[in-house]
Amino acid sequence: MNIGIDMMGGDFAPLEAVLGIKQLRHEAQGTRHEGDTAREEGQVTSELQLTLFGDEPQLTALLEEHGVSMDNLQIIHTTQVIDMHEHPTKAMKEKPDSSIAVGFGYLAKGLTDAFISAGNTGAMMVGSLFSIRAIEGILRPTIGAYMPRENGKLGWLLDAGINADCKPENLVQFAMLGSIFAEQVLNIPNPRVGLINIGEEEGKGNLLAQGAYPLLKSMESINFIGNIEGRDVFLDNADVMVCEGFTGNVILKLAESIHGLIQRRNIEDEFFNMFEFEQYGGVPVLGVNKPVIIGHGISHAKAFKNMIGIAQKMIEKDVIRLIKEKL
Amino acid sequence: MNIGIDMMGGDFAPLEAVLGIKQLRHEAQGTRHEGDTAREEGQVTSELQLTLFGDEPQLTALLEEHGVSMDNLQIIHTTQVIDMHEHPTKAMKEKPDSSIAVGFGYLAKGLTDAFISAGNTGAMMVGSLFSIRAIEGILRPTIGAYMPRENGKLGWLLDAGINADCKPENLVQFAMLGSIFAEQVLNIPNPRVGLINIGEEEGKGNLLAQGAYPLLKSMESINFIGNIEGRDVFLDNADVMVCEGFTGNVILKLAESIHGLIQRRNIEDEFFNMFEFEQYGGVPVLGVNKPVIIGHGISHAKAFKNMIGIAQKMIEKDVIRLIKEKL
Repeated sequence: MNIGIDMMGGDFAPLEAVLGIKQLRHEAQGTRHEGDTAREEGQVTSELQLTLFGDEPQLTALLEEHGVSMDNLQIIHTTQVIDMHEHPTKAMKEKPDSSIAVGFGYLAKGLTDAFISAGNTGAMMVGSLFSIRAIEGILRPTIGAYMPRENGKLGWLLDAGINADCKPENLVQFAMLGSIFAEQVLNIPNPRVGLINIGEEEGKGNLLAQGAYPLLKSMESINFIGNIEGRDVFLDNADVMVCEGFTGNVILKLAESIHGLIQRRNIEDEFFNMFEFEQYGGVPVLGVNKPVIIGHGISHAKAFKNMIGIAQKMIEKDVIRLIKEKL
Repeated sequence: MNIGIDMMGGDFAPLEAVLGIKQLRHEAQGTRHEGDTAREEGQVTSELQLTLFGDEPQLTALLEEHGVSMDNLQIIHTTQVIDMHEHPTKAMKEKPDSSIAVGFGYLAKGLTDAFISAGNTGAMMVGSLFSIRAIEGILRPTIGAYMPRENGKLGWLLDAGINADCKPENLVQFAMLGSIFAEQVLNIPNPRVGLINIGEEEGKGNLLAQGAYPLLKSMESINFIGNIEGRDVFLDNADVMVCEGFTGNVILKLAESIHGLIQRRNIEDEFFNMFEFEQYGGVPVLGVNKPVIIGHGISHAKAFKNMIGIAQKMIEKDVIRLIKEKL
């Protein structure tokens, strides 16, 4: 298994990316010492190779400085960086030797099995759609968001902002993609799918929700539980929450703002600590042909470590194949 | 000034409605003793008449029991009650002697100047649209929601769920209606209007937001400040926040759920106490020809008192005339 990492993406790159790898290595060693038990629990056992895209002299120095061994690790030197605020398509075209463009090149050629970045989200989407492409039959790839729950679990909301205008068919595919991700990566068996709506009963909602409800209801491959409302988002009432990307993005950004409020109010609470979204690492682009993980711009070491973990799990569980089978 | 009150609407009717009137009377007496100062501050000075719709024997007994004098107060006996879960149009048709139907009859005939209820929201909308009717030129009347802000102020979000599918023209009218309400009733001078969107720049968002932005920008009668995002909802970045009723309702119900979370986590915080929505009383149906205030089903005394206060203010500030002038 070979995972590609854009070492230059994110506000704290490349240092925090290097520290993330260090953390991962450290924990993997701990796991290895536990031996068979870890294996029985289904933890990562196959040898993990990392391919780092970025400025080689800088990366080599940082890896050495922080005592990260070069075992199972290769650096691909890139000379350009796509800035967080650059126009995605323009940047991908004009910076062919950027860490993101080269990273996608490796992924497309099968030299890596997944690609992760905390850099320019738009450029990551462009790379996903144009170099990796949507899985045949997927109308619109999607990005989701973790939603903290009072019981300590995570819900999965999608679309989180990529597809602002949707048709009922899109929501149906989000439900399928989200169910597979929730089951395989978030370890939620037979995940309950809720349609985000403004009333509980069938027939409620806007035209989109009214159109999507019967389609979701008729899907045998998902566990559709009906409509859920704004009040259910932070409760454990549905595991996968489906909506178009406009509402989803408003929910996500509102949820993200709660952590700042809690901090400014000097409130210390286990549940509200879950609103620090950085801890979850990143989110996959679901519906494209390879695992692509996009992280928050403010990603620190833990986020990078977790992104690698999500990519590993998506590869091990063969999520892409499962999606193709469902189509 | 004569305000009609549905005494039978809400989970705790008619007791809490009676207690609300008692609270109002008590506070009004306090105000009256302060004399000129209160008048200078623009507080309510004109004589307030209340018309109570409901079961007369029950109301008379409760008023007496709680020591509420019958001065400036008349009871209109009604024999039917529209239940919280009844179908609105059907109920309004089949229960012509319900407190809501009779209350709207009085309002339509000009026997009262405003009507408030914590009962069936749908029936209140049906009454507003069919007996009071939309102001000429208003495409879609709307209901808003208060949004707590960290600085202790309130923002005003609309539409909060009545109009799930909207056109750009609807959002433009919501912006105008919301601005007048925020300025006149919430006392926010020159309120800043933000378009709820999924990006900061013009051109971002779904087709609706993309269509609404230039229209809002060109309106001279409002103070449009551009796009706001989910993260701005609880901050003091815009006073009036405009969106279609699907997103608005999801935001409102999500915000309402925060208070329960805070309580269950045993967190005591001034700002998060503002998420107890019951304290705000009710919200007006904006865009109809008379002040109509709809309260939460779980309204207690304070909510009833505040609803009367909002109706009073809408009458005193002549909000309906101001809306007509803007059209």
